[in-house]
Amino acid sequence: MDRLTIIKVGGKVVEDHQLLEALLDQFNRISGYKMLVHGGGSTATEIARKLGIETKMVDGRRITDIEMLNVVTMVYGGLVNKNIVAGLQARNCNALGLTGADLSLVRAKKRPVKEIDYGFVGDVEEVNSREIRLLLNENVVPVIAPLTHDGKGQLLNTNADTMASEIATELSAYYNIFLFFCFEKKGVLLDEKDETSMIYELDSALFEKYKETGIISAGMIPKLENGFRAKRKGVKEVLITNHQNIATGRGTRLI
Amino acid sequence: MDRLTIIKVGGKVVEDHQLLEALLDQFNRISGYKMLVHGGGSTATEIARKLGIETKMVDGRRITDIEMLNVVTMVYGGLVNKNIVAGLQARNCNALGLTGADLSLVRAKKRPVKEIDYGFVGDVEEVNSREIRLLLNENVVPVIAPLTHDGKGQLLNTNADTMASEIATELSAYYNIFLFFCFEKKGVLLDEKDETSMIYELDSALFEKYKETGIISAGMIPKLENGFRAKRKGVKEVLITNHQNIATGRGTRLI
Repeated sequence: MDRLTIIKVGGKVVEDHQLLEALLDQFNRISGYKMLVHGGGSTATEIARKLGIETKMVDGRRITDIEMLNVVTMVYGGLVNKNIVAGLQARNCNALGLTGADLSLVRAKKRPVKEIDYGFVGDVEEVNSREIRLLLNENVVPVIAPLTHDGKGQLLNTNADTMASEIATELSAYYNIFLFFCFEKKGVLLDEKDETSMIYELDSALFEKYKETGIISAGMIPKLENGFRAKRKGVKEVLITNHQNIATGRGTRLI
Repeated sequence: MDRLTIIKVGGKVVEDHQLLEALLDQFNRISGYKMLVHGGGSTATEIARKLGIETKMVDGRRITDIEMLNVVTMVYGGLVNKNIVAGLQARNCNALGLTGADLSLVRAKKRPVKEIDYGFVGDVEEVNSREIRLLLNENVVPVIAPLTHDGKGQLLNTNADTMASEIATELSAYYNIFLFFCFEKKGVLLDEKDETSMIYELDSALFEKYKETGIISAGMIPKLENGFRAKRKGVKEVLITNHQNIATGRGTRLI
């Protein structure tokens, strides 16, 4: 099977012009089939604030009412996605910006309302690997924004780490998938202020231990849970790394 | 040669949910190769106003400073484009949202500053017909937002009528192109308050006369100029029509 590298990038890396340019330089060096899945960082929150739309969070998760859905559609699907595409095209990388609605690549279901109504949030139901493979075969480099659709005309907001993992898992039947979660740190750190404390390899037992002791917390937890799930389901390699190391492959390897 | 229908839609039709749904129903009925090019209506102006960004116009043309470019990238490339895509996918039409940056479909040059600095406005330099043909061959239905790029990483704002005409002209070497400019009126009207006053056929001599006498004015002039230019350059049929008649082919025909 051919290798397919899937880079998930979010947080400060997509917000900061210089970091993003550095990421695109590195991404451009990756040979073989590749794909970029991006989040939107805090830009959506910022634009929402300017538009007078209140950002509602429950347990660190964004509640996506219709106004917030429109904001993330604008910011993720438009502003962030198209600037990345233009940046890659400038590097002669044949990028194509996509959401899960385009070519019906990722169909999702609006999350059922239980204790919490998350609003227009989509839980992935089906990844259309056929269309992605056609694009890759034409040497197209997909750049994917974390939006899905329900197949009935409704766009939905889907977590970008989940989006990357679900696509990686589905495509693992056809490619050796290297899934890299790229953020501003070198990898998973035992002490978040000390980059030399990076863990080189992490298995689920160690992950559970670090979660209990609080060494791994907050946004890193869902990222790692997504990574371990993808690994269990056939993704060959999962790496937590920063924008400078996506081409070298250094970082925290999930085993 | 196969027929390719290119529908340009803008103004009230993309702003009003019901009109848009009606358009998508009609669009879905068109058989053969097809493509939709959309504008953004007044939504961009509205969002800009809410964000405290002033819309600057000179002679009816928008001045696109960097803040306004970000707004049109969000609104045209994200909000409008992805909602149309989701709406078409719900109708089992395999839509793919695109800008000129994606697959480098439309490369443009930032308009040189003469008396007026239009800002980040792109004049089309090259339409990449190869990639569009590959997509059409896969039965993909391109949905194109009026944004281009300069090939150096800069997105640019390009008039949607121009975008549709330039793409139509370039593709006329490969397809019999039917280019429909769709707006809220049935066609070109002698009396804009009277839909029965529609002109069935319009040639350039008549157009010049109506322009002089003021019967045809404002936003209709560049639309028709684009249409006549496309017709001269090989587009088979150019029609000015409304959202209800894109499948029937009734409207004002340029001859």
